[in-house]
Amino acid sequence: MKAEIIAVGTEILLGDILNTNAQYLSKELAQLGIEVYFQTVVGDNPKRLKDTIFQAFSRADLIITTGGLGPTEDDLTKETAAEYFGEELVLDERALGRIQKYFKRTGRTMTENNRKQAMVPKEHGIVLYNDNGTAPGIIMEKNGKIIAMLPGPPKETMPMFENQVKPYLQKKQEYTFVSEILRVASVGESAMETLVKDIIDAQTNPTIAPYAKYGESILRITAKAKSEEEAHALIAPVKAALKERLGNAVYAEGETNMQTVVAQMLLEGKKTIAVAESCTGGLVTSALVEYPGISEVLLEGCVTYTNEAKMRRLGVKAETLDKYTAVSREVAAEMAEGVAKTSGASIGVSITGIAGPGGGTEEKPVGLVYIGIHVNGKTTVTEYRYTGKRNQIRERAAFYALDLLRKALQDEA
Amino acid sequence: MKAEIIAVGTEILLGDILNTNAQYLSKELAQLGIEVYFQTVVGDNPKRLKDTIFQAFSRADLIITTGGLGPTEDDLTKETAAEYFGEELVLDERALGRIQKYFKRTGRTMTENNRKQAMVPKEHGIVLYNDNGTAPGIIMEKNGKIIAMLPGPPKETMPMFENQVKPYLQKKQEYTFVSEILRVASVGESAMETLVKDIIDAQTNPTIAPYAKYGESILRITAKAKSEEEAHALIAPVKAALKERLGNAVYAEGETNMQTVVAQMLLEGKKTIAVAESCTGGLVTSALVEYPGISEVLLEGCVTYTNEAKMRRLGVKAETLDKYTAVSREVAAEMAEGVAKTSGASIGVSITGIAGPGGGTEEKPVGLVYIGIHVNGKTTVTEYRYTGKRNQIRERAAFYALDLLRKALQDEA
Repeated sequence: MKAEIIAVGTEILLGDILNTNAQYLSKELAQLGIEVYFQTVVGDNPKRLKDTIFQAFSRADLIITTGGLGPTEDDLTKETAAEYFGEELVLDERALGRIQKYFKRTGRTMTENNRKQAMVPKEHGIVLYNDNGTAPGIIMEKNGKIIAMLPGPPKETMPMFENQVKPYLQKKQEYTFVSEILRVASVGESAMETLVKDIIDAQTNPTIAPYAKYGESILRITAKAKSEEEAHALIAPVKAALKERLGNAVYAEGETNMQTVVAQMLLEGKKTIAVAESCTGGLVTSALVEYPGISEVLLEGCVTYTNEAKMRRLGVKAETLDKYTAVSREVAAEMAEGVAKTSGASIGVSITGIAGPGGGTEEKPVGLVYIGIHVNGKTTVTEYRYTGKRNQIRERAAFYALDLLRKALQDEA
Repeated sequence: MKAEIIAVGTEILLGDILNTNAQYLSKELAQLGIEVYFQTVVGDNPKRLKDTIFQAFSRADLIITTGGLGPTEDDLTKETAAEYFGEELVLDERALGRIQKYFKRTGRTMTENNRKQAMVPKEHGIVLYNDNGTAPGIIMEKNGKIIAMLPGPPKETMPMFENQVKPYLQKKQEYTFVSEILRVASVGESAMETLVKDIIDAQTNPTIAPYAKYGESILRITAKAKSEEEAHALIAPVKAALKERLGNAVYAEGETNMQTVVAQMLLEGKKTIAVAESCTGGLVTSALVEYPGISEVLLEGCVTYTNEAKMRRLGVKAETLDKYTAVSREVAAEMAEGVAKTSGASIGVSITGIAGPGGGTEEKPVGLVYIGIHVNGKTTVTEYRYTGKRNQIRERAAFYALDLLRKALQDEA
């Protein structure tokens, strides 16, 4: 099946809004095995809208539109599709009732215009009721052509597609496409690709696609099959092979992130923790605080930016700072030990480094970061040399600190 | 002038990439007074690419393309445009030299394919040299039709448009559109709109558009004029009226953010600062650390998540915690005073609150946050009640803490 995605809205053409719906729908259609040939954005202009929709029908089997279902005279998506199919629009009492209720619930006044939103095709239409806004969506199908019209705001578009359009399309597809995700840390992005290149190249179904951001890499494994079970069964051995190859570098599967994984490990193991940060300036602590309930185990965080603070708060020795400077293996070790000791936590984490742009020397360049982990009376310090801008270096160091913490917790368990 | 934006790339149609270039270019063209009628995304398919470009030429004066300038056989944007204009492509030695240098600099090996990227139109083309990648861009103009072809990666697209395409287009436009931005804090988004509604409604040139995010509001004032000076002159009185109405709530103009403004004030005033955070968990400190050189004045941050840490690190009294609980005006005051005193900073900032989803009571609900500012021996605590999810509450509290700090620094100066 060939598809086109059409977004209707002048605000996108003015650049006021980013067309995130197009990406979402493209991904979803790819998963269903439906090829998207064009994405188009057209303004609220009757002639251009009609040309766009009619042209799309001339070259595609499926059109998905977003927007243009509002109450104003400019909102003409439904009217244009009805014209293409030679269909009349009639008032749907149930849709009208839902719109009235929505206005009541949100304490706003319904205008006469909003009745327009309850107009639906007389014969070949399926009404998609909207739980998150006023405009119902519509699916029309006739002579092998399908159009699914969805409202514009993503919080309305996405659940309506997921719950009502996707099952409709799934029934028409012989094959389904299922993806699983492996999240990889600890190895650089290009190193990861090299490590698994032969596995990626040997695959046709499932396929494996690598993505990267800030130290983290993602492997998306996508299988084409006649059922979801069959797809998962195709994925299983490939996923196992990747996990065996990458070992402990695979830190999670599916939609999650490093701070969630680490927070859950800390909470499950009832391990108390304290964090001493220098260049990351609170990024590690605030990432952990994203997780609700973390207060049970996260005793405190110290952003000890100055040497004085490192000494006073963490008990780092003046002679260590003098001899090795603040960005050193030795100071990282004393920071991790010091924050655990002074806070009474069983685990101490420290980060000290040079985020730049200033402050680098030949011997200690911008990007040099030491991360210390103190656990069970033992302290390990790891040296990293990152490239990039100040905040990229900081983000990367924070991610790696959480990753080292994850591995330390695994060794403990 | 009527324009269309065409992105070339199958990865966008698969949903792997969000088409942010289209938004950027739409905004920029709107600023130049050029109307964008369509945004289209087409894959790396010769026939569909040709149809798309030829159709766009049939209805627009200006086409801006992104992508499809790569070294592979699928990259055909340049070839298709040359075909439309009846133009031959020839090797540009300077472009080739730059590509060779780029490969050398980034330590990669240049392949024979990359020579294709140095092919440029023989007659009606302007070569746009690329400082951030290998593919040069091209502008072609003939018989009143213009096409500007830009590379796909935003970090290449944006500077090339800004520095090379925009000046080219500006010369062709009778009118220019200039925007200035006011950044507003301290008043809620809807309160801000109400405050200045009459000024917004009374304007036609310049126009005023409000935007909002996390406690911050933005007012964009856009004027249409024959020159940039004239546009700024039209904006000036309207900006002055808005600033008078909003007073101290206007915290900055143009492209900046609250942490930058506050960091600069601290550095200019040589005021040392320390931050004690509870629910924000390091967000305020890490926002300040984004600013290079902040180490001169930011002595430290303490994420005192537990009562013990509040007592031990900051000297908060046990009886204050017992009597008023951790989320209280009294504890916020002692935290701000304590962090200043223990760190030796002249200013202390504290945040304590309930970010949720758990931990709220009827009396102290989720979203209740106290922010303390200790400066010059005087401590002020402000109570806020935010709505939203855990991390929205945290972001908002961090923003308001920085804003209170800004106002305290203004009062000092």
